[in-house]
Amino acid sequence: MAILSGINPVLEGLKAGRPLDRILIAKGAAGPRLQEIIDLARRASVSVRFEERGGLDRLAGTPAHQGVVAMGAPQRYSELDDVAPAAQLLVVLDGVEDPHNLGAVIRTAHAAGAGAVVIPERRAVGLTDVVAKAAAGALEYLPVVRATNINRTLEQLKEMGYWIYGLDERGGQLYTEIEYTQPTVFVMGGEGHGLHELVKKHCDVLVRIPMAGAIASLNVSVAAGVVLFEWRRRQAK
Amino acid sequence: MAILSGINPVLEGLKAGRPLDRILIAKGAAGPRLQEIIDLARRASVSVRFEERGGLDRLAGTPAHQGVVAMGAPQRYSELDDVAPAAQLLVVLDGVEDPHNLGAVIRTAHAAGAGAVVIPERRAVGLTDVVAKAAAGALEYLPVVRATNINRTLEQLKEMGYWIYGLDERGGQLYTEIEYTQPTVFVMGGEGHGLHELVKKHCDVLVRIPMAGAIASLNVSVAAGVVLFEWRRRQAK
Repeated sequence: MAILSGINPVLEGLKAGRPLDRILIAKGAAGPRLQEIIDLARRASVSVRFEERGGLDRLAGTPAHQGVVAMGAPQRYSELDDVAPAAQLLVVLDGVEDPHNLGAVIRTAHAAGAGAVVIPERRAVGLTDVVAKAAAGALEYLPVVRATNINRTLEQLKEMGYWIYGLDERGGQLYTEIEYTQPTVFVMGGEGHGLHELVKKHCDVLVRIPMAGAIASLNVSVAAGVVLFEWRRRQAK
Repeated sequence: MAILSGINPVLEGLKAGRPLDRILIAKGAAGPRLQEIIDLARRASVSVRFEERGGLDRLAGTPAHQGVVAMGAPQRYSELDDVAPAAQLLVVLDGVEDPHNLGAVIRTAHAAGAGAVVIPERRAVGLTDVVAKAAAGALEYLPVVRATNINRTLEQLKEMGYWIYGLDERGGQLYTEIEYTQPTVFVMGGEGHGLHELVKKHCDVLVRIPMAGAIASLNVSVAAGVVLFEWRRRQAK
């Protein structure tokens, strides 16, 4: 059973029509956004119960649930064929291990207009409740595809007509100087190690963010924001 | 006493000449980057000891220390006069509460070429070890100023000639359409609430990131990446 906690994740879950079994609200908690949750839950026939805060702490695994916890069906993965080749922008992650980072990338990708995020099945975090929370509701809207083999998936995407741009510290081209060909895939590496060598070989272009200062890389969700919103800016022009 | 943990934070601390009392390395841990830490420590006359992993876990407060923990003097804050008006780009945070977010903003600001980050003294996280770790070493290079009153600080910055751009979901101008006047200040709100009303009044321009999808906002460090790297792209042109 999946647990959503916090006002934004529960609210977005309700708005997106995600199947929820029950919503628990801490006794004494109040506010317009909690009231909105209660109203939406009643309209969706999801039962709402008021319980002691300690019970919510235990269910959420943290006291940072803002007085609301929802129990529902676990998040499902999508198939590549459900999202491609229709999506003009896809994000492929080559081994992100931190659930906060995965959640933040999902939130960022959705905000930049991506059609899906692809994650590897092994040596990477999957869709956990921490990811759902860090995605701040975006997981309700953005399909996530789990790939058995990232390199095989990149080949399939190429066959569908996608151009593959890999983000790499030593990439030969600046992300600001590229004429992005649509449909576009951005591939990003995990924390600390960047893209695997074989994954790099599957990219059409290796792209670099020019860095000031002494640190070689950005957090993966920040790097995603920088390149995806540059892609978006170009489309808007 | 401040604790640095993880290969990047300790390596950057050494490279930046940060005063360190001692470095502990887990028995059995090895690798070229740990060796680099040992070499740099010896050159800097910082003592290196090999200890059981459990001891490092306790000191770091987490097992995610990659086999290295350093103990040193606590991080110091800078004064506004030390960084302004020399810096062409400053980031002012209006109440960021999550240490991972503050760390990621510091890392991002440094990578985009900002001269400092300004944080409020109250209702916001300060420079903790979690912040230092999330900053991935950038805290060694980027001054952080603690402001007693953010609005007063914005007034001082205006008197020094800065233009103040506030990031706001309902901002009247798109961040991509502004001719940024230098020197530049970006002001960003904390998690969930955005900029305070009074802070908005102190901004010259309220700026918006256009969002696709159903979620209204980005993580603060991702939003920082998007606008700071757009500012940087403009400077490079």
